[in-house]
Amino acid sequence: MIRTHTAGSLRKEHAGQQVTLAGWVARRRDHGGVVFIDLRDASGSAQVVFREEDHAHDLRAEYCVQVVGQVRVRPEGNENPDLPTGAIEVVADRVEVLSEAAPLPFPIEGNVGVSEEARLKYRYLDIRRQQVAHAVRTRSKATYLANEVMNELGFVYVETPTLTRSTPEGARDFLVPVRLQPGSWYALPQSPQLFKQLLQVAGLERYYQLAKCYRDEDLRADRQPEFTQIDVEMSFVDQEDVIEVGEKLIGRLWREIAGHELTTPLPRMTYADAMALYGSDKPDLRFGQELVEMTGYFADTSFRVFQADYVGAVVMPGGASQTRKELDGWQEWARSRGAKGLAYVLVQEDGTLGGPVAKNLSAEEIAGLAGKVGAGPGDAVFFAAGARHASRELLGAARLEIGRRCGLIDESKWSFLWVVDAPMFEEDGEGGWTAVHHPFTGPKPEWADNFQDHPGEALAYAYDMVCNGMEIGGGSIRIHRAEMQQRVFDVLGISKEEAESKFGFLLEAFKYGPPPHGGIAYGWDRICMLLSGGESIRDVIAFPKTASGFDPLTGAPTPITTDQRKEAGVDAAPKP
Amino acid sequence: MIRTHTAGSLRKEHAGQQVTLAGWVARRRDHGGVVFIDLRDASGSAQVVFREEDHAHDLRAEYCVQVVGQVRVRPEGNENPDLPTGAIEVVADRVEVLSEAAPLPFPIEGNVGVSEEARLKYRYLDIRRQQVAHAVRTRSKATYLANEVMNELGFVYVETPTLTRSTPEGARDFLVPVRLQPGSWYALPQSPQLFKQLLQVAGLERYYQLAKCYRDEDLRADRQPEFTQIDVEMSFVDQEDVIEVGEKLIGRLWREIAGHELTTPLPRMTYADAMALYGSDKPDLRFGQELVEMTGYFADTSFRVFQADYVGAVVMPGGASQTRKELDGWQEWARSRGAKGLAYVLVQEDGTLGGPVAKNLSAEEIAGLAGKVGAGPGDAVFFAAGARHASRELLGAARLEIGRRCGLIDESKWSFLWVVDAPMFEEDGEGGWTAVHHPFTGPKPEWADNFQDHPGEALAYAYDMVCNGMEIGGGSIRIHRAEMQQRVFDVLGISKEEAESKFGFLLEAFKYGPPPHGGIAYGWDRICMLLSGGESIRDVIAFPKTASGFDPLTGAPTPITTDQRKEAGVDAAPKP
Repeated sequence: MIRTHTAGSLRKEHAGQQVTLAGWVARRRDHGGVVFIDLRDASGSAQVVFREEDHAHDLRAEYCVQVVGQVRVRPEGNENPDLPTGAIEVVADRVEVLSEAAPLPFPIEGNVGVSEEARLKYRYLDIRRQQVAHAVRTRSKATYLANEVMNELGFVYVETPTLTRSTPEGARDFLVPVRLQPGSWYALPQSPQLFKQLLQVAGLERYYQLAKCYRDEDLRADRQPEFTQIDVEMSFVDQEDVIEVGEKLIGRLWREIAGHELTTPLPRMTYADAMALYGSDKPDLRFGQELVEMTGYFADTSFRVFQADYVGAVVMPGGASQTRKELDGWQEWARSRGAKGLAYVLVQEDGTLGGPVAKNLSAEEIAGLAGKVGAGPGDAVFFAAGARHASRELLGAARLEIGRRCGLIDESKWSFLWVVDAPMFEEDGEGGWTAVHHPFTGPKPEWADNFQDHPGEALAYAYDMVCNGMEIGGGSIRIHRAEMQQRVFDVLGISKEEAESKFGFLLEAFKYGPPPHGGIAYGWDRICMLLSGGESIRDVIAFPKTASGFDPLTGAPTPITTDQRKEAGVDAAPKP
Repeated sequence: MIRTHTAGSLRKEHAGQQVTLAGWVARRRDHGGVVFIDLRDASGSAQVVFREEDHAHDLRAEYCVQVVGQVRVRPEGNENPDLPTGAIEVVADRVEVLSEAAPLPFPIEGNVGVSEEARLKYRYLDIRRQQVAHAVRTRSKATYLANEVMNELGFVYVETPTLTRSTPEGARDFLVPVRLQPGSWYALPQSPQLFKQLLQVAGLERYYQLAKCYRDEDLRADRQPEFTQIDVEMSFVDQEDVIEVGEKLIGRLWREIAGHELTTPLPRMTYADAMALYGSDKPDLRFGQELVEMTGYFADTSFRVFQADYVGAVVMPGGASQTRKELDGWQEWARSRGAKGLAYVLVQEDGTLGGPVAKNLSAEEIAGLAGKVGAGPGDAVFFAAGARHASRELLGAARLEIGRRCGLIDESKWSFLWVVDAPMFEEDGEGGWTAVHHPFTGPKPEWADNFQDHPGEALAYAYDMVCNGMEIGGGSIRIHRAEMQQRVFDVLGISKEEAESKFGFLLEAFKYGPPPHGGIAYGWDRICMLLSGGESIRDVIAFPKTASGFDPLTGAPTPITTDQRKEAGVDAAPKP
């Protein structure tokens, strides 16, 4: 090492020692003939004093330097109790510039706002900033800890292939031409799903991997074409076993990194309750404002809009005092989500109801309304009426918006729960069914024999872990019997040929004594974001891409040359 | 869990307990009315006794079963001391077939030879076999241990992108079309080289990753298109620091997994010595048979073949008794390596020299030859003459072949060393120079100022870790000064434009106070192969591909459909 000490480790007890430091010029202050510099390295920073101007007058921000000097206790009154090294300073004897720095595109020190584009283009400077470095280091700590927990729990770490065959998971695959087999392509895996199931057939029993996954999805706010999941699969287990492992893993992460003790077992909520009360399969329980079903209440209404399969309501505290513009804004908001609008009534301070909907309601309907939904004077009540699922989702989104606008969300809180008993199937809008999870998800035991007769009601043996309104993990007990798998394919309208071509090798494997098994995958980027207090998964990805998959740092992706194209066999016809 | 105990954990003290086991039918023996079954799970196996035939008569090999029964001490004389569970057996009350197994393509039990193709196609059955499962588990253990060591040493685990831009590392890149930016392509990284250097500019100081890398290379025996490396980079370090970390990591792996204590510091050998004495930059020191330089000895020879820039020899003990066919075989062997042949003399039991070369030598040359090369009666001496490097490589390969054929290699030995001081450049055969490592490798300090004046002599600040004749790690201290980097580019004939287009972002980053840094990458597949006693990296890859990149299990790669091709933007022209 070209230093004897790290800057951040110096304390009073080092006083009198000669030290060699190496790091970056963080801050510089000139006081007459004396120059003070904060020397920063990965451990923190220390104040360096240059008694003679000539040593230091060339040093600019972010120069990389080596300093030889003597540690001394700071003169009385000059201590900085906010800094771990605030009791000392290093009086420089010698400084060597290891490398210079050009004028910076943005300041490293001070929590300055910087455009996303500049941050990504100069990510190597962005990561020098304290908060960003902290996020990167938090992810590292979490990664080591996850490995430690899974090792303790007896999981076998297995790397599955990333040059593989298209798998059927809904999103598009990224494709890779194969030079040695011109006309043939690999796909990058959307997840190790099939391989982790094969590893159960292989008898490993407990599989774990920090797995890189790829999904070629359309533009979304916080999307990355590659992402990481904590991938877990277990044999001879029931839902309880997978959940127990998950609570141990997540519990340790939050205890040791966020300093928060999870109360386990975590609460569980059925998918049906989550949709009914929160209009979401990943409810944020850090605040109330539950949805109230009003279908029965309005069963005999003469108001046409409420003559619907479902009518529900959510209360906005203090919402009656919103301006006309604000109330119109809600209509805009609802339309941007594909709804016609958002009916509302305003509960006036005297208890009477205002707003356009009130005029259409009977005296009786008006009289009981506030009480029924739990609204008080000054509140607004929003309604959705129509198809049950879509209406609940609209109210669920309105609830979250209310939570944000009214400051109802306690940001210091952690709300964890499992959402269980999701439906196996949902209508595909064309008279058929699609799998809510994936086609290898098993039915709950009570639906084992007859899910095919009631595809709209059958429940999946699936479980999602939700934190603060975000899904951070999802899994299921899988199907391991060929006969049951066939019934699922039949419901989904997947022909034998299609099944064979898409995942024939898994079905083949299942002929050789597959064990009952199940598993889960945790969204590692999202978990690290939560643990580090970030707002975007980009905060915890060392070199993230923009929403369109562009990397402002390297300029990837790029055009390829004609030679590359030819050599890679991009245009070769596959062998017959 | 659908079992109460694992099969392999049962001992005498469980006698009398009712247990539920779950696993696979490993072996089955019928003795009259009694059926014995070895029930195997991940923990091992236990003998299960079925007293009534009807419980067990349907059970075939590799059926997955759940067994409820009572543990009892085996009747005297029936113990199996070779088995951890050999003192007990489980008397079955109930058995449930969890899933059946079709007739197997190869037996799981017994160490039966199986073709590579069948193993890969039915890899999920192959992994059920004890030796293969052991290799997969050893790799897992090594992975956890590597993480533990690097965490203890304060390294920050960072995942670098795998959808990125072409990097200049000699091999071809795998390419990925980008749907959202039609006409542009990502490249899969050959290594995280540029990113790990950027992370040093970012101030992380100690970076580590278990990194997936991709190289589109031509067919080679033990090649995989994707492979894993333990990737390390450090700031403010010297060669000694990187080597120290490497010895701690490899030391722990070998201590805890192979039960072998490394003697550190490991021996070091210069590249020059390695080539001179072993004809290899990764010498296998488990046996002797060093090359002997004979250039001076034959300085005045009249034998035309030995009138060369370099003449060297290697001794094959007992080689004089080889048949004519065997000796011809060596010529064949040499020609297959691109040499003209392999000259030899045979030292007869009476000390005279036989073989065609001897006739061409003077009496004086003959007299001192055996003594000079260290050959005794009955030995053969092989010669190579010509260009120094190529001749040494030929002799080095002959030495290894001699080691194998003569059983000179002690397979129980571990031979570790560092090969240091490799040349920075080598001639590219077209009058120019190429980088022996990569263009970011720094010169040794004594060559810092003038390597450009003596490119054929300048030494790189590089170090390779070698184990048993295999390179298992390679790294270097990098260049961090733009001025020095420019001199390297000048020697390599890389124009400013080319450098800018290939790795302009790294050069840009180096404008902002880059720290002195260096690192290393360890070949993880190879290390795990050595640790598990395998003979191919395929033994320690869960789902390997064949040499041509084909996966017999999934059938990857496959042709893609016209729709996929269109959607992925394979044929789109890049935006101008």
